[in-house]
Amino acid sequence: MKLGEIGEFGFIGRIAARIAEGKGVRVGIGDDAAVTEVQPGYVLLTTSDMLIEQVHFDLAFTDPYRLGKKSLAVNLSDIAAMGGEPRHFLLSLAIPVDLPLEFLDRFIEGVLAMADQYGVILIGGDTCRSSAGLVVSITLHGEQLPDRVVCRAGARPGDAVFVTGTVGDSALGLAQLRQGETAGPAVDRHLDPVPRVRAGIALAEAGFATAMIDISDGLLADLGHIAERSGVGARVDAEQLPISPFFRAAASRLSTDHLALALAGGEDYELLFTAPAPLEERIIDLMAALGVMCRRIGTITAAGSGIVVTGEGGRTLAVPRAGFNHFSGT
Amino acid sequence: MKLGEIGEFGFIGRIAARIAEGKGVRVGIGDDAAVTEVQPGYVLLTTSDMLIEQVHFDLAFTDPYRLGKKSLAVNLSDIAAMGGEPRHFLLSLAIPVDLPLEFLDRFIEGVLAMADQYGVILIGGDTCRSSAGLVVSITLHGEQLPDRVVCRAGARPGDAVFVTGTVGDSALGLAQLRQGETAGPAVDRHLDPVPRVRAGIALAEAGFATAMIDISDGLLADLGHIAERSGVGARVDAEQLPISPFFRAAASRLSTDHLALALAGGEDYELLFTAPAPLEERIIDLMAALGVMCRRIGTITAAGSGIVVTGEGGRTLAVPRAGFNHFSGT
Repeated sequence: MKLGEIGEFGFIGRIAARIAEGKGVRVGIGDDAAVTEVQPGYVLLTTSDMLIEQVHFDLAFTDPYRLGKKSLAVNLSDIAAMGGEPRHFLLSLAIPVDLPLEFLDRFIEGVLAMADQYGVILIGGDTCRSSAGLVVSITLHGEQLPDRVVCRAGARPGDAVFVTGTVGDSALGLAQLRQGETAGPAVDRHLDPVPRVRAGIALAEAGFATAMIDISDGLLADLGHIAERSGVGARVDAEQLPISPFFRAAASRLSTDHLALALAGGEDYELLFTAPAPLEERIIDLMAALGVMCRRIGTITAAGSGIVVTGEGGRTLAVPRAGFNHFSGT
Repeated sequence: MKLGEIGEFGFIGRIAARIAEGKGVRVGIGDDAAVTEVQPGYVLLTTSDMLIEQVHFDLAFTDPYRLGKKSLAVNLSDIAAMGGEPRHFLLSLAIPVDLPLEFLDRFIEGVLAMADQYGVILIGGDTCRSSAGLVVSITLHGEQLPDRVVCRAGARPGDAVFVTGTVGDSALGLAQLRQGETAGPAVDRHLDPVPRVRAGIALAEAGFATAMIDISDGLLADLGHIAERSGVGARVDAEQLPISPFFRAAASRLSTDHLALALAGGEDYELLFTAPAPLEERIIDLMAALGVMCRRIGTITAAGSGIVVTGEGGRTLAVPRAGFNHFSGT
């Protein structure tokens, strides 16, 4: 069945029928605008991410269910990086006219599965025809008490730099997909990333993190964003980078620089954050209590010192710094 | 100059440099999420509209400045239709790599000119490469006291149906553009619509409107949305339709049904609303005080009576009801 057979309003109706009433939602799908509440005393956090076929995803690599999950996951990751509790989202789709309805149904199932997992509610959006590929645009609302929100701008010289989970897996997975592999833990991390929502909220509630970002552009590029907004530099110890066993095993077989993949490969959706160095043990414990590995990988340095990566014996390494830039071709 | 020469972050930086600090904005462009405040006691209104090249606009017809204005205007119109005060917005763009930077600069100027006119502030978004045409996705926040918000669902049998401004001009303008005309009042209404923000707020504050929608799909289709959500029918008197002099003059020269254009042509971005019939005079006066023409065009009828259009002598007319449906080809 094609979308044309049920029409735009039929499609929206099918989705709306699957949405439960939700906390804080006064009017959801089906009016000119959604009407929601923000808890008294809380500020509103809003993030928006657009995913474009052939730019962000390749339908030869991903199935619609995981694409739906990932579309919401990347937005959840942004709210997590502010320490916010995700609440409500809008989903806009530009749909090629010949896309099978079964594809869309599976995509929506993936979106709603991810939404259920994190307790967020679909409240609106837009649906239209695409003249080319599939376009997904999600706007996600979160909320948090204002003094708990963690921005990129709070890192101070002497702060330690931490990262959750492992880095480089997603970039490895993408490389594997391009070389014809279709499954495996790295491929899963690329196609089905896990946003660190509870870890982000816990860090915000504890008041530990001075600055935070999620790794979407690549560890060094995203650390660069923190450094720029905070007016500081940073030193990263390459030997402390958290690398998964499968990354270590597989990277050596790929014709690519193992360290560059871990430092510049994007889409890890891990949290990269800074905190006073004396809090290291408490932070590791707090994350461990949530089942999240966390490691100190470096130190914030003075303004003007840039981002420096050191290797064995503390010598400076030359590594590519640039993350993914949509218009530079890198 | 091409966008590739300044890059994604260069482009974002250029935009961010032009945004002033704004009311209710704690963190704007440049973090993982925007941080804003909603006034105590107010609810949040959120709307999102996506505009796709070759679907919603044709770069052969529109200039980038007016495309920027319209991209925000259609969202302002949605907030107006809830009676909300528009506040903050996110702008996401998928940009073809060969689009000249001058085009983008003019587009952004249009967006920001519209934003300044209505006192709304750009707080974030997303920028990426497009594999095909230009994609614009805007999410706009508004706010209002909860008991003032006007939904589609409140129309009651006996209520009068009102519409602001004139209808059909935008559809006429689009028809003229397709026939090679490039200027004129109808073309202006299509390319540069005026959202009825102050009229919507005034109706909400006065508590007059029982249901409201903006005309984007077409008068009858949008009245159908009110009827469906409210569980009522409606009767429209075709002789009361507010038709502009240039519409009347030009429509007769076009090879199209004049009445169908006024009733089913979309993108008027006028407010269509219902209110108790005895309030007619007060409503006309309230709108006139804002310089907005407003006319009663019909009456809400009982559930199950459908949408009926009557002409001279009260006889029922057969008119196309369908508005724009992205997937039906109508």
